[in-house]
Amino acid sequence: MSQGTLLYAQSGGVTAVINATAAAVITEARAKKIKVLAARNGILGALREELIDTSKEAAASIVALAHTPGGAFGSCRYKLKSLEADRARYERLLEVLRAHDVRWFLYNGGNDSADTALKVSQLAKEFGYPLTCVGVPKTIDNDLAVTDTCPGFGSAAKYTAVSVREAALDVAAMAETSTRVFIYEAMGRHAGWLAAAAGLAGENPDDAPQIILLPERAYDEAAFLTKVKQVVEKVGYCVVVASEGIHTADGRFVADAGGATDSFGHTQLGGVASYLAGRVKAGLGYKVHWTLPDYLQRSARHVASKTDWEQAQAVGKAAVRFALEGRNSVMPVIVRTSDAPYRWKIEAAPLSKVANHEKKMPAGFIRKDGFGISDKARRYLQPLIRGEAPLPWGRDGLPKYVTLKNVAVAKKLPAWEG
Amino acid sequence: MSQGTLLYAQSGGVTAVINATAAAVITEARAKKIKVLAARNGILGALREELIDTSKEAAASIVALAHTPGGAFGSCRYKLKSLEADRARYERLLEVLRAHDVRWFLYNGGNDSADTALKVSQLAKEFGYPLTCVGVPKTIDNDLAVTDTCPGFGSAAKYTAVSVREAALDVAAMAETSTRVFIYEAMGRHAGWLAAAAGLAGENPDDAPQIILLPERAYDEAAFLTKVKQVVEKVGYCVVVASEGIHTADGRFVADAGGATDSFGHTQLGGVASYLAGRVKAGLGYKVHWTLPDYLQRSARHVASKTDWEQAQAVGKAAVRFALEGRNSVMPVIVRTSDAPYRWKIEAAPLSKVANHEKKMPAGFIRKDGFGISDKARRYLQPLIRGEAPLPWGRDGLPKYVTLKNVAVAKKLPAWEG
Repeated sequence: MSQGTLLYAQSGGVTAVINATAAAVITEARAKKIKVLAARNGILGALREELIDTSKEAAASIVALAHTPGGAFGSCRYKLKSLEADRARYERLLEVLRAHDVRWFLYNGGNDSADTALKVSQLAKEFGYPLTCVGVPKTIDNDLAVTDTCPGFGSAAKYTAVSVREAALDVAAMAETSTRVFIYEAMGRHAGWLAAAAGLAGENPDDAPQIILLPERAYDEAAFLTKVKQVVEKVGYCVVVASEGIHTADGRFVADAGGATDSFGHTQLGGVASYLAGRVKAGLGYKVHWTLPDYLQRSARHVASKTDWEQAQAVGKAAVRFALEGRNSVMPVIVRTSDAPYRWKIEAAPLSKVANHEKKMPAGFIRKDGFGISDKARRYLQPLIRGEAPLPWGRDGLPKYVTLKNVAVAKKLPAWEG
Repeated sequence: MSQGTLLYAQSGGVTAVINATAAAVITEARAKKIKVLAARNGILGALREELIDTSKEAAASIVALAHTPGGAFGSCRYKLKSLEADRARYERLLEVLRAHDVRWFLYNGGNDSADTALKVSQLAKEFGYPLTCVGVPKTIDNDLAVTDTCPGFGSAAKYTAVSVREAALDVAAMAETSTRVFIYEAMGRHAGWLAAAAGLAGENPDDAPQIILLPERAYDEAAFLTKVKQVVEKVGYCVVVASEGIHTADGRFVADAGGATDSFGHTQLGGVASYLAGRVKAGLGYKVHWTLPDYLQRSARHVASKTDWEQAQAVGKAAVRFALEGRNSVMPVIVRTSDAPYRWKIEAAPLSKVANHEKKMPAGFIRKDGFGISDKARRYLQPLIRGEAPLPWGRDGLPKYVTLKNVAVAKKLPAWEG
């Protein structure tokens, strides 16, 4: 008689370490003799009954999975609405879980995913189906409530700080006859966490990045240009880090890319650095360069944070433990017990406290002039980028990343007409 | 009695390893008891008599210099014209060299710098001033003649291949509901070497990057869009790497940034990826993301190639040796003696063979369909990104880069009125 299976699904934008969480889930479940199914392309795969049998993967592949960026089973942007509005989809989901004897559902994502996991658990209860739902935190945006930080953020933060420090050395060397102002566009829709992490690249106010533009402060062009001019005149060059989500006092995004929206209803952003570069050039006449790292910043496993990598694995392991203990509708969260030395532990938080909340930077994390981070922010951010996560490199000079076999589980239900 | 000093200057865009060359120059000269002066901000510093006394730097700083990106003494974009047109500047340069008893002049740059070094040596001969001029190769563009490769290129190439492999895993995971086409813009004004290096990220034609757009092939929008569509329909997503210098059959750059030109008279490019993204979206309707790594790709010492790092040091060491041997108007170049195993040695090439030449990708390096690289290109490129170059990381999670003291040498001449 089957003891039940565990279903794992990834949701939303992937990260440099979400597969480390997946590897920890699989490893922990294997140790407990629990079979892990993975949904292909996240919740969509669960709805379509496109499931992957992870027991077909060799142990060595799961070890390699722990250092492979991206999302090994596929992820998706697909938001389920309320139980009322999307009832058919939730019921189909439950039907698939039941068909594959899924007793434990682990959903690895951000606050939207926490919300979905919570609703699935509510419906299961309504139907009397024995299911334990656990959310597993993940987002480079670092905007989940309750948890001290979100797996994925530390590595993207390290990428940001390292890249800004390196590019600043380049700019400093060439400023006299070439680029005076360099603008780096960081991801971050509503919260400026990643842009803030760039502040770790410098120690003093004159160190790059001299200006950080955060969505938590209204963008004021005159003040910005004045500050750029001051910095260039004092330091010789200016490195600006801008969050993609900065907006003016009346709430308009500085660079709204034609108003396109993704399937979560979020406006699809991009182009802030390009816009600011144009304003600096027109307003101050300086030669400007800019960078848009885009996906590079969230997939750069080669420069991942060891702290982040360890936490990504810890939440995966804890999620399996919570699930098997029957702790329903919870999420393993990271609790910081000390800044220096940095100490943390994992606890369980109710999904209801995480779902649909968005954690912005506290006002005390922002420097008085609004263009940088405070010492308090440094104390918070610094441990998160600490340590280098081991990575095997091939003879070909490239990281050794794994591609899983992703063997499909035979379908048992009629095709989904969703 | 002074035995003379050696003047070292950096020119043009800096790289992840140009300081490794500088460190090797200083180390080798110190071993021979020769004092090294460095020009602040390249040739401009020499003209202005802004010289740095590198003997004031601690040995540990020179060790750290070898793994610090950027240009430690400053570089510049400043091209001297012909001896006739710019005679006053050349004479001033010689006056400064004479005032500081410079007997050996090492100019670390690309083909423009080789040309300048050659002209300085000609003028010195005309004036009967005993000076040995040695060009030292450097450019991420890999477009210098004679040498097998250029220090700086291998590391930028490794950054490109690693970043494309990582971002492709991200795109593959999300393609079903999110980004279908991802476009990466690589540096490379006239030669597609860096974009070509991205080809190392994949092994088979269906592996990312599925399309590489090179300046060596005319950009044909219809053919490009057809290929993108084919790839998306077959693979599910498409990663495109585009060289910033791609142009149409009639020679127009695909993204000419308003026709701005730098001080070398080169058009300042940028915006190819953004342009292509717009065309793909408009023409095929796919969701598109794009990245412009800009300076990140040439300053990313954290992911430098060991081969490149070793070659950067080898040319620095050889340059000092050639200079002290009185081998005038030469450049140490890298000669490949074997592909597998990769073997190379340093030889001296006449500056006249390097100056003002530009090495494009050979036709045999480009795949028949024009959208990728051939096996021959792989054999050439592969060893250049091989190996990881050691880097000390701090407790703070950031690379430990050095800032030199850069102590100024007292001026002996009236100010330059250039």
